[in-house]
Amino acid sequence: MLSTMQDDQLSLAHLLRHGVRMHGDSEVATWTGSGSRKTTFDRIGRRSAQLAHALRELGVTADQRVGTFMWNNAEHLECYLTIPAMGAVLHTLNIRLFPEQLVFVVNDAQDHVVVVDGSLLPLFARQLPEMTTVRHVIVTGGAAGALDAPSGVTVHSYDELLDGRPETFEWPEIEERSAAAMCYTSGTTGDPKGVVYSHRSIWLHSMQVCMTDSMRLTDADKALVIVPMFHAMSWGMPYAAFMVGTSMVLPDRFLQPGPIAEILAEEKPTFAGAVPTIWQGLLQHLDANPQDISHLREVVVGGSAAPPAMMHAFEERYDVPVLHAWGMTETSPLGSVARPPKAAKGEEAWRYRYTQGRFPASVRARLIDDNGDEVPWDGESVGELEVKGPWITGSYYGGADPDKFHDGWLRTGDVGKITPNGYLTLTDRAKDVIKSGGEWISSVDLENAVMAHPAVAEAAVIGVPDEKWDERPLVAVVVREGEQVTAEELRTFLADKVAKWQLPEHWTFVDEVPKTSVGKFDKKRLRAAHAEGKLDIAHF
Amino acid sequence: MLSTMQDDQLSLAHLLRHGVRMHGDSEVATWTGSGSRKTTFDRIGRRSAQLAHALRELGVTADQRVGTFMWNNAEHLECYLTIPAMGAVLHTLNIRLFPEQLVFVVNDAQDHVVVVDGSLLPLFARQLPEMTTVRHVIVTGGAAGALDAPSGVTVHSYDELLDGRPETFEWPEIEERSAAAMCYTSGTTGDPKGVVYSHRSIWLHSMQVCMTDSMRLTDADKALVIVPMFHAMSWGMPYAAFMVGTSMVLPDRFLQPGPIAEILAEEKPTFAGAVPTIWQGLLQHLDANPQDISHLREVVVGGSAAPPAMMHAFEERYDVPVLHAWGMTETSPLGSVARPPKAAKGEEAWRYRYTQGRFPASVRARLIDDNGDEVPWDGESVGELEVKGPWITGSYYGGADPDKFHDGWLRTGDVGKITPNGYLTLTDRAKDVIKSGGEWISSVDLENAVMAHPAVAEAAVIGVPDEKWDERPLVAVVVREGEQVTAEELRTFLADKVAKWQLPEHWTFVDEVPKTSVGKFDKKRLRAAHAEGKLDIAHF
Repeated sequence: MLSTMQDDQLSLAHLLRHGVRMHGDSEVATWTGSGSRKTTFDRIGRRSAQLAHALRELGVTADQRVGTFMWNNAEHLECYLTIPAMGAVLHTLNIRLFPEQLVFVVNDAQDHVVVVDGSLLPLFARQLPEMTTVRHVIVTGGAAGALDAPSGVTVHSYDELLDGRPETFEWPEIEERSAAAMCYTSGTTGDPKGVVYSHRSIWLHSMQVCMTDSMRLTDADKALVIVPMFHAMSWGMPYAAFMVGTSMVLPDRFLQPGPIAEILAEEKPTFAGAVPTIWQGLLQHLDANPQDISHLREVVVGGSAAPPAMMHAFEERYDVPVLHAWGMTETSPLGSVARPPKAAKGEEAWRYRYTQGRFPASVRARLIDDNGDEVPWDGESVGELEVKGPWITGSYYGGADPDKFHDGWLRTGDVGKITPNGYLTLTDRAKDVIKSGGEWISSVDLENAVMAHPAVAEAAVIGVPDEKWDERPLVAVVVREGEQVTAEELRTFLADKVAKWQLPEHWTFVDEVPKTSVGKFDKKRLRAAHAEGKLDIAHF
Repeated sequence: MLSTMQDDQLSLAHLLRHGVRMHGDSEVATWTGSGSRKTTFDRIGRRSAQLAHALRELGVTADQRVGTFMWNNAEHLECYLTIPAMGAVLHTLNIRLFPEQLVFVVNDAQDHVVVVDGSLLPLFARQLPEMTTVRHVIVTGGAAGALDAPSGVTVHSYDELLDGRPETFEWPEIEERSAAAMCYTSGTTGDPKGVVYSHRSIWLHSMQVCMTDSMRLTDADKALVIVPMFHAMSWGMPYAAFMVGTSMVLPDRFLQPGPIAEILAEEKPTFAGAVPTIWQGLLQHLDANPQDISHLREVVVGGSAAPPAMMHAFEERYDVPVLHAWGMTETSPLGSVARPPKAAKGEEAWRYRYTQGRFPASVRARLIDDNGDEVPWDGESVGELEVKGPWITGSYYGGADPDKFHDGWLRTGDVGKITPNGYLTLTDRAKDVIKSGGEWISSVDLENAVMAHPAVAEAAVIGVPDEKWDERPLVAVVVREGEQVTAEELRTFLADKVAKWQLPEHWTFVDEVPKTSVGKFDKKRLRAAHAEGKLDIAHF
């Protein structure tokens, strides 16, 4: 039996029109290094129409991909809204990709036009000759003249291109499952993989961001959007803001603690979102240069686990509650949010807040063990997290890496446990967990336990092959300068800290733990060193 | 270009599982006349599984319709969740329908099973012999034995039917556009018309109810759901509650001001929803029997216009903000919510709060004049409100009354104006507005202006045919007992209150204004009386 409801399509063209019409006076401030330049949703609506006319003229029809290589600013926001609303596909380019990765993603997506921040032009220009499908480069900030374009590529000034064009546009009707935007994940292995969001997925995700169990954005909020618009869609905040009229503050390229503190002082946002590193840096800055930031009713932290000490510092020293959330590019990214259950108070509430959080109704979750079976939500059993829902990726662009999907669910690559009432705690990456006799040992937990010893500077744990147990942990220890410690002493130190069957038998001392370009332990290199017999190991 | 997002279906089976698993300890209290009987989402989940097994056994497969003839209570909530989650269609029967209408809707929907409140059994039983498709009647509250069923109909006790059945159920996968629930509108003319909600429409509507621009329900709330579950899906509150874990208080049949006050004192809900009549009655009761109700963080009023004086009384005397909202059965019902814009303060904020409110992003609106053209949103131009969106009806069940739809938009039958920033004020019903020389005169505005005269008890205004202007207003006046007033005096009284061209030329004095069964002016009868020349009219 069919319903009698209208078959109305969720479309970002509606979102743009809605935000402009209902919340025309909501503001967008872009930081300039000294003060903000300001615009309104109404003006953004008119500029978006001009941009749409310009892009049509450059041959952007149907679902062509338009790249953006930009900081968080008003022009990027105009691209965010215009490109999907005209039926094309916004492709946000991560400015921190390795050069060959940047070339790969532009060519893979077949970007026809790329909008580039004037300040990022030198970085972009070096790879432009290798970008085979790009025909037009649009440069913001009046730096267009600085680009000596390869043959076949036309360079435009963003402002000049928009100037004088009509301030209304006939936004098309769009089928909600059409592509609206795409973003590549920058994995440590292999080529980046494309995630293609739909109008439907972005619409639903935007509603979720404004729901009470998530970020609770309102039209009375002013959101400081620190998390880059070139990474995981800036956590969906720009679209959510247009849904309810939230004013925005965009930091442009000023992401150091000093400028962020200045932006806070000047704009007094009520909400902000950023990764832990940003908050840690700001905290150190504020501790040295005290400033009232209690105008922030809440800040959200995601991207990697928020250290509890940092959460306490913001709340107790600065009266700013920190909301921990988990997600990834493949989950749009809102996956779970750590609002404690109503009954939890004091320490109990804090324990919930340290977790990665609870899943909203639209995100289903399960933990899967080595046999592909579900493990219970008992707060202890560990498995790989798999998720399902209308804003969760079901495949990668072009069908890359099909192993990341399991019966229609996304394998997150994260290992963790879930409480009976649905709170997730991640304990390790699936590729790093040590699989010992059918049980999983968290490499992260062992590392933290070893690093708690005063003589240990760093410790990295990997799984090494074992005839009886499949895998057993190997600990690579960097001893603190001027200290001394033996493997035996460390084993004794661990004895009352981890379960007996988890106690590592294999130990090695190294000068340093190999690191990736972003400073994480590079366990791949450690595994290779072990395989090649380059490590001097003590066995127990 | 297709997105890579999962094609995940929005389904009330997910909603039921989510609420039970994540918010198992959220409470549902049903008032008994003296105290509440309590249950939890967890227990409701187990009872829902039992109910699903029972309904399967009674032959409810695929999309059969299951009727409910019930007050707001835990059993009705179990039906709300179970019937759609098992893939069948919940058909809420309005207990206040005329007997012939009740028979019509049950037969039209082909209800196979009906769940009936024990206390409503006598009312239902009288019409049962005429319900041609009903095979099973399930009676709550242990009154099953009281029903002498017609041949071919089996009577069951709700509790006995569920007893001992498995507490888990394999909820099916459901296509999101499938019918989930249906509700008939009880128009004053013609047969009731069926509105069939989908899983998708209910899911999206539930998200909206929990968004910051709507009711903001959270898991810390306890919502007193006064608006009947047999009318406009109880404004979607039961489903929204399951989405975020809001505890509920259900008043069962105790809807008089005294019992409502008792429920407030006992349960201390934080939120409540009801029509203005309920709130007016409660206000009078509280003024006579003072009681602290400041535990209500907000109450929502809809169904008909909230009198400003009542809104002020609750806020200023009882510290309870009143949120005005507009909707109808055809709009699921959330259409607009009167949260003032962020910048409005004091009197200006109040003026916004008196309106029917602003449309959320998922609801598009337009005002259409007699020529089918859109009128501007200037806060003055008047037209019939038409709406479009994923939880708005696109047709009636069986294709009834196709004139209510216009190019895929729903014609609401309401006439009003919209401010540039999207706030709706309804001024009249489309069928009552007086169309004079291409301009529309609000019958309601004229009535209020005449009734402001101290000698007038009541006044009803209808349009009567006019050769030159098409229609002109006729005022039917009931003079207050012991008072005297002439039509000439009333015209003079109106002169500085309405535009000159709106001033009525036709006046009649009547003993009483004919009323409908629910106490509204019956203008149809007044028009008939005029057409038959039964009114004694003074012309100017």
